[in-house]
Amino acid sequence: MKLARFTEAGRTRIGKVVGDRIIDLTPALGEGVSMRQVLADLPRLRPALLAATGPEFALASVRLEVPVADPQKFLAIGMNYQKHAEEARAAGITIPTSQMWFNKQVSCLNAPFDPVVKPEASDKVDYEIELGVVIGKRCRHVSRGEARSVIAGYVIVNDVSARDWLPRSPTFTLGKSFDTHGPVGPWITTDDEIADPLDLGMKLWVNGELRQDGRTNDMIYDIYDQIAYLTTVMTLEPGDILATGTPSGIGAPTGCFLKPGDRMRLEIEALGAIESEIVAETAHAHEPVLSAM
Amino acid sequence: MKLARFTEAGRTRIGKVVGDRIIDLTPALGEGVSMRQVLADLPRLRPALLAATGPEFALASVRLEVPVADPQKFLAIGMNYQKHAEEARAAGITIPTSQMWFNKQVSCLNAPFDPVVKPEASDKVDYEIELGVVIGKRCRHVSRGEARSVIAGYVIVNDVSARDWLPRSPTFTLGKSFDTHGPVGPWITTDDEIADPLDLGMKLWVNGELRQDGRTNDMIYDIYDQIAYLTTVMTLEPGDILATGTPSGIGAPTGCFLKPGDRMRLEIEALGAIESEIVAETAHAHEPVLSAM
Repeated sequence: MKLARFTEAGRTRIGKVVGDRIIDLTPALGEGVSMRQVLADLPRLRPALLAATGPEFALASVRLEVPVADPQKFLAIGMNYQKHAEEARAAGITIPTSQMWFNKQVSCLNAPFDPVVKPEASDKVDYEIELGVVIGKRCRHVSRGEARSVIAGYVIVNDVSARDWLPRSPTFTLGKSFDTHGPVGPWITTDDEIADPLDLGMKLWVNGELRQDGRTNDMIYDIYDQIAYLTTVMTLEPGDILATGTPSGIGAPTGCFLKPGDRMRLEIEALGAIESEIVAETAHAHEPVLSAM
Repeated sequence: MKLARFTEAGRTRIGKVVGDRIIDLTPALGEGVSMRQVLADLPRLRPALLAATGPEFALASVRLEVPVADPQKFLAIGMNYQKHAEEARAAGITIPTSQMWFNKQVSCLNAPFDPVVKPEASDKVDYEIELGVVIGKRCRHVSRGEARSVIAGYVIVNDVSARDWLPRSPTFTLGKSFDTHGPVGPWITTDDEIADPLDLGMKLWVNGELRQDGRTNDMIYDIYDQIAYLTTVMTLEPGDILATGTPSGIGAPTGCFLKPGDRMRLEIEALGAIESEIVAETAHAHEPVLSAM
């Protein structure tokens, strides 16, 4: 199943994507149910959702949203593909000897076709295509052998990075977390649709030029190792998103950073595609930008 | 005002603390209102909440919960007091030349009097008392001069740290995020009650022995600088918690790490006190611990 959040006629809802159509699942789920709740209850809901009918729309006519509106965690692993680790080493970043996790702030999540902002504060904005794992069960101390059972599905993540902010702090927290720097989507492809998540092709283009071309079988720590390691420390929750590393081909080594007008397209085998245009930050007054929640 | 989340007779609610009593604010707020919503709307709600009456309980008879149940972000700054930075340098940690932010995972939040678990996976669990800033307004690009206007109030944070996990990755993400390693409380003291958040005394004891004794005026980057810098990058949301650094006196330099049975008490001037006992991790089967959300 392909589970999406979408907006049509001003209302955001959960739907399932079938071919080039999206079927509103609100009649099957009831009003006010969140994607986190759906993921947590997916084993029970699956038959009803597979069978569900409801208002149907052309996919091209709706706005796709971030598939999980409010994940508790948005974590990412650094330097998890060998050739990319070599790129990073060449850029002066120390390669860790164990899994190197950092947070992208939840506030940087961005809808799959929304613009990505080049901030005034950075001139080195770069892309990174990553397989995103979406957690489906509250879990701790998960063994490698059981790790697949806690996965609800997969998304494409663009781990957009302000490279000039990374050396300022070894924690990566700020350079990975500018608003809009976490495009995710286009929808959650549930685990049962993927034969082997460890063998998916992934490609990223900028303005039609192929820049990244990798396979998930090149990961240093695969997604099961990642879940086992993370849950040694912390409880994962339904809806948590893990960005599992990027292959080589980022812009930094060649100095090809993103500029307004550039268009990124990211595809992962069986998961679809997402696209973002880079836009300049609109000049902000030097007053605080405040608004109600 | 002192805004708390508390559980009494099996129901968790929002209340205001007055002396040694807590007054249930549900009649004033209505059912199902979250602390994030209260904080976002505090300027409008304040007169009604100050005047509110409702069911009243002895503070000692209720269970205090994490004051914000589900913050979007739980961020912390490293090495932000001069003497503590020297302790860290002596332990081999490189001192950054700008604000060093990392995430404590939201999943590590812990009620102010709940036990803190010494994980099987760490033998170097340590404490850190910190002034916690709770954000009250959705904001981006906040100037230093306007920073205080986005603060809803203050809490005490214990930035519990698994020191042996910190050197494994320069991002700090895992060593700061073991489940239960983020005690926060005892309640949110609203900003209007604090004359100057840059001049508050803070003390931490272990088993009655004073270990940390600092003042917030010793920060390298004060809380207004912190808000200005963070919002260069990201939108802060009502309920976000910023742990603003710890003074010297942590256990690491002397090898005095926490062990089961130890009791920590943390006090910050005008904010109250929180206390946690260290307990051993209950042996977990080498099976995944799974539960519904």
